[in-house]
Amino acid sequence: MSERLYFCSDYMEGAHPAIMNRLIETNMEKTGGYGFDTYCDSAKERIRQACQCPEAEVHFLVGGTQTNATVISCLLRGYQGVIAAETGHIATHEAGAIEAGGHKVMTIPHELGKINAEDVACLLGDFHSDDNRDHMVMPGMVYISQPTEYGTLYTLEEVEALSAVCRQYQIPLYVDGARMAYALATPSNDLTLADLARLCDVFYIGGTKCGALFGEAVVIPKKDTIPHFFTLIKQHGALLAKGRILGIQFDELFRDDLYLHIGDTAIELAQMLQKEIKDMGYQLFYESPTNQIFFVFENEELARLGEKVEYSFWEKYDDNHTAIRFATSWATSKEDADKLLAILRK
Amino acid sequence: MSERLYFCSDYMEGAHPAIMNRLIETNMEKTGGYGFDTYCDSAKERIRQACQCPEAEVHFLVGGTQTNATVISCLLRGYQGVIAAETGHIATHEAGAIEAGGHKVMTIPHELGKINAEDVACLLGDFHSDDNRDHMVMPGMVYISQPTEYGTLYTLEEVEALSAVCRQYQIPLYVDGARMAYALATPSNDLTLADLARLCDVFYIGGTKCGALFGEAVVIPKKDTIPHFFTLIKQHGALLAKGRILGIQFDELFRDDLYLHIGDTAIELAQMLQKEIKDMGYQLFYESPTNQIFFVFENEELARLGEKVEYSFWEKYDDNHTAIRFATSWATSKEDADKLLAILRK
Amino acid sequence: MSERLYFCSDYMEGAHPAIMNRLIETNMEKTGGYGFDTYCDSAKERIRQACQCPEAEVHFLVGGTQTNATVISCLLRGYQGVIAAETGHIATHEAGAIEAGGHKVMTIPHELGKINAEDVACLLGDFHSDDNRDHMVMPGMVYISQPTEYGTLYTLEEVEALSAVCRQYQIPLYVDGARMAYALATPSNDLTLADLARLCDVFYIGGTKCGALFGEAVVIPKKDTIPHFFTLIKQHGALLAKGRILGIQFDELFRDDLYLHIGDTAIELAQMLQKEIKDMGYQLFYESPTNQIFFVFENEELARLGEKVEYSFWEKYDDNHTAIRFATSWATSKEDADKLLAILRK
Amino acid sequence: MSERLYFCSDYMEGAHPAIMNRLIETNMEKTGGYGFDTYCDSAKERIRQACQCPEAEVHFLVGGTQTNATVISCLLRGYQGVIAAETGHIATHEAGAIEAGGHKVMTIPHELGKINAEDVACLLGDFHSDDNRDHMVMPGMVYISQPTEYGTLYTLEEVEALSAVCRQYQIPLYVDGARMAYALATPSNDLTLADLARLCDVFYIGGTKCGALFGEAVVIPKKDTIPHFFTLIKQHGALLAKGRILGIQFDELFRDDLYLHIGDTAIELAQMLQKEIKDMGYQLFYESPTNQIFFVFENEELARLGEKVEYSFWEKYDDNHTAIRFATSWATSKEDADKLLAILRK
Repeated sequence: MSERLYFCSDYMEGAHPAIMNRLIETNMEKTGGYGFDTYCDSAKERIRQACQCPEAEVHFLVGGTQTNATVISCLLRGYQGVIAAETGHIATHEAGAIEAGGHKVMTIPHELGKINAEDVACLLGDFHSDDNRDHMVMPGMVYISQPTEYGTLYTLEEVEALSAVCRQYQIPLYVDGARMAYALATPSNDLTLADLARLCDVFYIGGTKCGALFGEAVVIPKKDTIPHFFTLIKQHGALLAKGRILGIQFDELFRDDLYLHIGDTAIELAQMLQKEIKDMGYQLFYESPTNQIFFVFENEELARLGEKVEYSFWEKYDDNHTAIRFATSWATSKEDADKLLAILRK
Repeated sequence: MSERLYFCSDYMEGAHPAIMNRLIETNMEKTGGYGFDTYCDSAKERIRQACQCPEAEVHFLVGGTQTNATVISCLLRGYQGVIAAETGHIATHEAGAIEAGGHKVMTIPHELGKINAEDVACLLGDFHSDDNRDHMVMPGMVYISQPTEYGTLYTLEEVEALSAVCRQYQIPLYVDGARMAYALATPSNDLTLADLARLCDVFYIGGTKCGALFGEAVVIPKKDTIPHFFTLIKQHGALLAKGRILGIQFDELFRDDLYLHIGDTAIELAQMLQKEIKDMGYQLFYESPTNQIFFVFENEELARLGEKVEYSFWEKYDDNHTAIRFATSWATSKEDADKLLAILRK
Repeated sequence: MSERLYFCSDYMEGAHPAIMNRLIETNMEKTGGYGFDTYCDSAKERIRQACQCPEAEVHFLVGGTQTNATVISCLLRGYQGVIAAETGHIATHEAGAIEAGGHKVMTIPHELGKINAEDVACLLGDFHSDDNRDHMVMPGMVYISQPTEYGTLYTLEEVEALSAVCRQYQIPLYVDGARMAYALATPSNDLTLADLARLCDVFYIGGTKCGALFGEAVVIPKKDTIPHFFTLIKQHGALLAKGRILGIQFDELFRDDLYLHIGDTAIELAQMLQKEIKDMGYQLFYESPTNQIFFVFENEELARLGEKVEYSFWEKYDDNHTAIRFATSWATSKEDADKLLAILRK
Repeated sequence: MSERLYFCSDYMEGAHPAIMNRLIETNMEKTGGYGFDTYCDSAKERIRQACQCPEAEVHFLVGGTQTNATVISCLLRGYQGVIAAETGHIATHEAGAIEAGGHKVMTIPHELGKINAEDVACLLGDFHSDDNRDHMVMPGMVYISQPTEYGTLYTLEEVEALSAVCRQYQIPLYVDGARMAYALATPSNDLTLADLARLCDVFYIGGTKCGALFGEAVVIPKKDTIPHFFTLIKQHGALLAKGRILGIQFDELFRDDLYLHIGDTAIELAQMLQKEIKDMGYQLFYESPTNQIFFVFENEELARLGEKVEYSFWEKYDDNHTAIRFATSWATSKEDADKLLAILRK
């Protein structure tokens, strides 16, 4: 097993050493549960500062699907659904968690995982001018991912446009930031945490895929956007008893801007791999700016690759070809990246 | 803060040092997600052995409310509810998670947190002979906690009786073992994990309160009792991406019978405290055999105690008195127990 | 069959002849669906007048369980439950419809089907002063029935007290008026529709048991108490396509105060029966002022009665006796009442 | 108002005179509630005979959305969704009732409202071969409408093919027959009730749009396909207290094959209108075989038409044109059809 190379996802390792050290140091301390401890307090304050949003509520949940299901069901009223890309995580790989909470995911077409303000405005305009709208699900919020499931990034301008449409229709904009650190580490990215705090109603800063053992930090820039959110988190099974384990992790991630740079090597290595693999003559599926890169392989070649390398199946390309994903993480080594290139060169 | 004593709950510390060491050792390894890793495999195998149930399914979830909500909604059909003690955790302190999943908690009276087979049989008999039963919620499973929320224990005989009633009516028996290690460490306990595997349809072995950072191990003695449980765990937001973190913790807890003894000092200290505090003349609320002990304090005296000691409010006793709980954990020290006694002696 | 006497419920016949005539007269007219027709408009206006509440919203639904499930799920937020008597219809005979909508029914003790303001205030006070309240279901509304399931009536004073508690805690008071016509026809009743409109946030005026083929009129004194209620009615499967059938029925029921008197003979006959049967020496279960009366019968005697009369089983009284209910309706004849007395006299 | 022509839907009138007469005749009889009466028994038996399925369960519900929501939530397990056309009623105009019940509507493309077996097989095949399927909603049943929302009809061959795919994957096929009478009255139709009973797992025979005041008859060819369906109907608020009102209506509809022919004039008039309007030079949107016909009108022309005729908006065709629907019903007169033609001729 030790000989295999792992590029299948960005959650294959444990946590950043700084987190592990802090967990060890604090292990035998006694603190209150459910997030009422000084570590959570400190982590929340650091996140507020990183978001330049001193009034923001911050809540720590455990995982991404859980966070999406909890936040979305809390933001929507019974007669509403959530607008998302057809490729949005909530629409595809969350086992129907949103619908299990009672709400329709109202999908719209995407371009490499992104939706645009025009399409959202169109859907909202059509709904509100439809004679039958009272028999239909009202679009009640917008969900996007940054980076998207395709590894692409929304620009500041694009999120400003989405935010403007949402505010025109008085519905919340929610951003799933499961891989936010990789967006923040991407040189071309121009969308900061402060921008998100200004433009969104709720967003989450991913820990699980970005250096933590687990954990997602939900940021609600305007207090009381979700009344009794603590109770609702509990009800959704998303309240960690030893809440400080989340606090400690995010306190470390936001100490000295670690989170802003924890994705740096992942981006560098992924971009290096993307360029090199393409230069070897492999077919790029599409150009990705972040830590997930996508290639089309001939199926027999892929079978051979699979003997040595773990990758992700992305989609069938044609009868003889398959699109796959390689993902790097904060923990990927240059050495492994070079080994992957060596294997592909043969 | 360092001067305060903490006896308010059994989830105030991190994890057992063996767990922390193993997490550190394995931190940079790369494994698959969602429980598909060798640590989970090993932990599951050890739990199967501890339960003497080689065919059991084992699933790792994150927390107790989450586990209860997920298991119960999966075991019940739409027309059914769950029988529980009025004091059952699902009936009181889970923020309505069972109802949020669509099911009624059908409470029956308790004796120090325990329900008995006769009452369950009576409720089931009454239901099935009621002319209006088709307009009513069918009792579809039984929920008990071992130890109970009151720190009391079911005997083997009592669980055999409950199991017999459930099997007569062909409904599952489910045991919430959030504090199972403390039951197993109690000298008077005669209910083993193997008994539970024989008598229950689903039960969980608590990690969060028993030496882990977090985590609960759901044991399903008979395979496929819950079809597609993996997907349902995911849908409930209860699937940890880095599943190995759960596997590693339970692998340590079940290495060399650690789990069977991790509660030993907690029980010894709690029982010592119970005896000593009672001997000082304080009013025992009731005798508890496990790590949660209960006393009635005069309110002014309690206010003074609160300046130095963290305890749990249990219930109002009368206008001038309050029942409180002291809890010990696997991490409680003899030194702290002695300090508590010293404070109470004054 | 024609020889049996039917006193088992108040929904055994069709509709009041005035309704049937109007349905025949209007049968081939063409109108819009879903309540957008002049019959619904007229019926709503008459109900507003009867309630002395010119601004009230009125919605027509089909049945009682449906109405309760729809209204309650719309009034509550996700973290809330509904306070009701242990004997409340929503707590006992609606097959778990409230829980299926995600909410706990928080039962409190009753006295002949009624709850009182003190108990409600106590539950609310306890909740809001509980340290663990954020882990618990918040009581978010109060449900009562008028008349109750026991045939008893709330007085104006009692509902004023309940309303005051609700307003103090800013939670809605909802009244299930499935048998409202029988309350309004009871001489001792002092609670008018106008009182209900003044004191409640939502209530419904029952049609099914009060002279209609089916239908319940939901009255919301303050507009927009439930935003997008139409859509939510549709979502709950409670929107009748040919809405005018409901409009026509309620338009007739509220023409010339028919609804206020449609229960008169039912009350007279039930009260006459109650007095006479008691005078014969049968054991009154308790004194009821309305159209449901309750007696305790020796079981063998009851078996004989059952050969000739349909009654409702109420509850087991002791090993040899059973409490039963006789119900009259707007359609019960003096002749049938006399026949019942004749049978009982033998 | 009397001068307007109504072609906007097929539920604008009351009920077939035979039904109204029977309701009047039986109005003052006393029967048990909830469908336990001889009228329901007789109606069920007639439906079983019409379906040539003597063992079928038959249940009467009130409306279409209610029936779909109840049946679908009962057929699916928590991890499953329902496959439907993008244009399926459950996907568009039921206010999210399916999602409110916890399930995803998994839409696939349609051709004039119809889906085909190949696409369903493809979706099922793709799902079951997807590595990530355990993180996804499992397609758990197929929903079709006969006639479709577009007025088109499935052929026997097409439903046989859909049924074969469903049986291959062991998932139920459910048919929404809200307008079934119009299918059965269409000369080109080759799909009988007996075929449906043979090929489907559940289907419903629509009353509301086919001559009843309201009501839908759910047919379950194989008993116990949905255990405890009665209780689930009650829980969904779909159980009519005076169940006989449904029984009487369906007993009349299935007396002497009335239901098989009640749509005859509707089909004749709609087809005559379709041909004549097309011959006048108006643009057919597409050819429909049943009682709903579709034309494209220039917007100003449409505004003039709207002054005299009620039609249904279907969809925007282009900036200057709109597609509309004219619907006939069992109650539409030749006179009104001629008046419509006269107006259009001008």
